[in-house]
Amino acid sequence: MNQKGILIVVSGFAGTGKGTLMKRLLQDYDNYALSVSMTTRSPRPGERDGIEYFFVTKEAFEEKIAQDGLVEYACYVGNYYGTPRAYVEEKLGEGKDVILEIEIQGALKIKEKFPDSVLIFVMPPSGPELKARLVGRGTETMDVIEKRMSRAIEESQGIEHYDYIVVNDDLDECTQRLHNIICSAHSTPGRNMEFINKIRNELTQGN
Amino acid sequence: MNQKGILIVVSGFAGTGKGTLMKRLLQDYDNYALSVSMTTRSPRPGERDGIEYFFVTKEAFEEKIAQDGLVEYACYVGNYYGTPRAYVEEKLGEGKDVILEIEIQGALKIKEKFPDSVLIFVMPPSGPELKARLVGRGTETMDVIEKRMSRAIEESQGIEHYDYIVVNDDLDECTQRLHNIICSAHSTPGRNMEFINKIRNELTQGN
Repeated sequence: MNQKGILIVVSGFAGTGKGTLMKRLLQDYDNYALSVSMTTRSPRPGERDGIEYFFVTKEAFEEKIAQDGLVEYACYVGNYYGTPRAYVEEKLGEGKDVILEIEIQGALKIKEKFPDSVLIFVMPPSGPELKARLVGRGTETMDVIEKRMSRAIEESQGIEHYDYIVVNDDLDECTQRLHNIICSAHSTPGRNMEFINKIRNELTQGN
Repeated sequence: MNQKGILIVVSGFAGTGKGTLMKRLLQDYDNYALSVSMTTRSPRPGERDGIEYFFVTKEAFEEKIAQDGLVEYACYVGNYYGTPRAYVEEKLGEGKDVILEIEIQGALKIKEKFPDSVLIFVMPPSGPELKARLVGRGTETMDVIEKRMSRAIEESQGIEHYDYIVVNDDLDECTQRLHNIICSAHSTPGRNMEFINKIRNELTQGN
């Protein structure tokens, strides 16, 4: 029926499995493009430059900011994270729904700049479950885990700013629900004015 | 995850197949209750009192208005149409999503009284297709058909007030899309505050 791509922001506490969920969404459906963020933090074991993130120096990041080459950026646990502009604009133009997996500061900036964007928050089934997942990942020190939990408490205050929440209890179901939410977002009148006006013209001419 | 039922308003030009669509939605899924409207118009062949409508006299309708027994009512092509209050409140309380199949005047009144309601407009695939369907039904005179087309033109001006549109091109797909839209509406933060606050408490206590 339409149309132009939607800018989709996906946030969620560390440890809610957003990464796996995004990978699955892109595997299962054609209409998505995942924006790769740029960061100054160090790669975790197994992370590849240009896949999970573009890993750059502080100097390179600040040059990108100066060139207005980022749609948003924010600082989180001492490192820069940002969304390169060129890829987002190219894919939206192609009609793809572009997914930004970013944290809440960036999400709110996106909503302000792009009021038509859709903000989705991925929730853990429960608080204890979240902590178990963070500890279970085994890649971080207790200190970092505690920092992430504090951060989660802080981020949880902002959930009302999101348009939708999804609970990541079961990967299959959560992927499906996420896809349905995005499809439904395509069904607002505002995103279908071309079609609505076509019908209006046909009704008037036919009478 | 939640919850209380949502008040769903479904509108659409006469001839878009809303009735069939609603019947199918109720057949395929458990979580819906269809509100039966009250009207002073005469039954069409095959229509049964208490099923398609409650058919009442003008006097009985006006008494219902006086008792505040309707959540909304409107006048359309010379007849009253209204939504009895008791059924709606009972089913919402049971957690059912209550569907009101009403026209735009009533829809806007519902949105004003119940800002949390979800308004969905069913569209025909095209203007000529709509006219073909109206003529094809064969139950109405040309005069009534022309009146309905004029009414459609008028109603089409109000589509932007709806939250979503669905195109009834294929009954199976349209039913599925309608159901997905309603499920997505259940995923807003505002409709899940109990769950969100539970997670917040668990995060705070767990730290």
